[in-house]
Amino acid sequence: MRKVYLDHAATTPLLPEVREAMLPYLGELFGNPSCLHDWGDAAREAMDTAREQVAELIGASADEIIFTGSGTESNNFAVKGLALAQQGRGKHIIVSAIEHFSVLHSAKTLEKWGFELSEVPVDRYGVVDPDEVRKRIRKDTVLVSVMHANGEAGTIESIPEIARITRENNISFHTDAIASAGTVPVNVKELGVDALSLAGNQFYGPKGVGALYIRQGVRVMPLLDGGVQEEGRRAGTENVPAIVGLGKAAELATKDMASRMKHLGYLRDRLLNELPARIDHAVITGHPENRLPGNASFCVQFIEGESMLMLLNSQGVAVTSGSACTSRALKASHVLIAMGLSHEIAQGSVLFTFGIDNTEKDVDYVLEVLPPIVEKLRQMSPLYAKFIKKGEGGA
Amino acid sequence: MRKVYLDHAATTPLLPEVREAMLPYLGELFGNPSCLHDWGDAAREAMDTAREQVAELIGASADEIIFTGSGTESNNFAVKGLALAQQGRGKHIIVSAIEHFSVLHSAKTLEKWGFELSEVPVDRYGVVDPDEVRKRIRKDTVLVSVMHANGEAGTIESIPEIARITRENNISFHTDAIASAGTVPVNVKELGVDALSLAGNQFYGPKGVGALYIRQGVRVMPLLDGGVQEEGRRAGTENVPAIVGLGKAAELATKDMASRMKHLGYLRDRLLNELPARIDHAVITGHPENRLPGNASFCVQFIEGESMLMLLNSQGVAVTSGSACTSRALKASHVLIAMGLSHEIAQGSVLFTFGIDNTEKDVDYVLEVLPPIVEKLRQMSPLYAKFIKKGEGGA
Repeated sequence: MRKVYLDHAATTPLLPEVREAMLPYLGELFGNPSCLHDWGDAAREAMDTAREQVAELIGASADEIIFTGSGTESNNFAVKGLALAQQGRGKHIIVSAIEHFSVLHSAKTLEKWGFELSEVPVDRYGVVDPDEVRKRIRKDTVLVSVMHANGEAGTIESIPEIARITRENNISFHTDAIASAGTVPVNVKELGVDALSLAGNQFYGPKGVGALYIRQGVRVMPLLDGGVQEEGRRAGTENVPAIVGLGKAAELATKDMASRMKHLGYLRDRLLNELPARIDHAVITGHPENRLPGNASFCVQFIEGESMLMLLNSQGVAVTSGSACTSRALKASHVLIAMGLSHEIAQGSVLFTFGIDNTEKDVDYVLEVLPPIVEKLRQMSPLYAKFIKKGEGGA
Repeated sequence: MRKVYLDHAATTPLLPEVREAMLPYLGELFGNPSCLHDWGDAAREAMDTAREQVAELIGASADEIIFTGSGTESNNFAVKGLALAQQGRGKHIIVSAIEHFSVLHSAKTLEKWGFELSEVPVDRYGVVDPDEVRKRIRKDTVLVSVMHANGEAGTIESIPEIARITRENNISFHTDAIASAGTVPVNVKELGVDALSLAGNQFYGPKGVGALYIRQGVRVMPLLDGGVQEEGRRAGTENVPAIVGLGKAAELATKDMASRMKHLGYLRDRLLNELPARIDHAVITGHPENRLPGNASFCVQFIEGESMLMLLNSQGVAVTSGSACTSRALKASHVLIAMGLSHEIAQGSVLFTFGIDNTEKDVDYVLEVLPPIVEKLRQMSPLYAKFIKKGEGGA
């Protein structure tokens, strides 16, 4: 059976070049970068190179990059660390309604710690209107966090416009660019943000490593206390092999981004364009133009996304329904609900995310196996039976 | 030149078997364990095995193991998470004076958040007297954290006795076993603790992964908010290759512990026994018997540890002065100061930590190169000149 992995939003495979770059650090070059001897020096030099590579990917300086253990850690660190560092000035924060749970739940934790939280709504395409951010700004607002792109809906937000507003109001601005950095152009200066999160496993780098960009001069309270690693801002022995892999992945992403985007965009469009002809009642979600090139998200009415992905899996196709981090929670996606979709439709969510190894044939295979799966599930769906009956009744 | 790595307290190399176990997860088996498809299933099954392996190493159940990104994260999670989960009952915590900074600084952060902190002193061998813990217990004490073994001094603490006291008083007890788990027998039931931290890179497993044992029924507040990974207690895409490596390292440690301990103990004793005959004014630190088998720590009077380790490095020997996490801070070790050593002596600290690949010849090489280094540094030391002069004056 054909095996087709279309769940790159959940995690990407390692590129062979990335794995090759990591291997020496899983072997002879095993030193702890904090150590003042040859083994430590070799590890530290490798980390310095990786820091330059990550900085270049996003147009930052190397000393503005802090390595973390995951994208989730970067988001927790940014949201809690920036808010706590400024709580003397005020205790109000603003986030969008479609943030990843690592931002949303960090904000909820801050609420427990005495902060007030405002959520900015999105339109039906998942777009945050910058004016809606402006409206929520108060004298005691110290942090705004709006994601650069949403991994589920694929929508890319108007970060530079939001940054203009936060800057005018002297408020820190963090953006979660985990779904976008390494995939589409992300430049911290053009975006105008104070902090930005990214993760290695989103662009063919390893799991277990992320980075947080913090603009020079911006104060952040550490999330992990301990040793003086990362200039005292993030304690813990550095995951050198993973950091080296992240650096290599960043270098390759910088070099190949344009051709990758073209390839992914072609596959996505081929799937989304063909879909309506093959499946009735399929609702494409996310923004029609401003979206991640590999993201094809849609809902199939009258059936459950979970069942669809189980049957797709039995045909060798890996996809997801909502974000990987929450797929085991089996709830309708908060992102789709915030976009105004009904629970009924949102439950039929299915997310195809393409990667650079996917081909046209993969798309054709999906277009071949998906319609009978949908048909089969609809035959078993009481909702569909009701809908058909209603249609007949009305006719 | 001979290359001799004697800094295993900073980090250990990966065992070839551990690396082999990890490699498939850096290749084909790259799935995200949260995903409901074949790629996700393979990753999840690998994690389940690793969880069993880690649980077996410390006598726990698999569902009492939470994977983290480092030992430092485990300690932050335990200290902050256990204290915050119980702050309704009281806001007083107790830690020993020789804890790793990931525990001490987490405790200081809790102080900023309104907790009160008591530090328990140690004797000259670095031993915490359980009665000193008992004396500090108050009605509002919610957490005691005392390490199982100190990575710098090598001293192993009387954890079961302290656990008896905390249990009598219905107080949570965490132990940092990062320096000891995988090296000496660590059994959570025999120790009687509620929480225990360990790290992969301390026993020939990978960097970037740690674990926190939390006894069944004990509540802990998450440090990383987000997805529902690790039963909702630790969010973030799991670092599958590193978790697999940690599991394999735990399995091998369980199997080979006795022979490893014998080998390390032999090397350590050979170095410590020969030392006084070769170097004047060398002060062996830590407990004479209750100590980690690979730990040979001592201070050389009248010289600085940093200079000693630089010159040792130029002879191919990697050692450290104090803990790796703080070696760049260039301060006298808080552990040695707490043990009552003067700043002058503590500055001459040097720490040799043996690993399973070290041989008798490595010890002989150190015994050959170290005395001339000490001699050379003493010739340049104003402190030593003063000491000699005083001796002559007194004669």
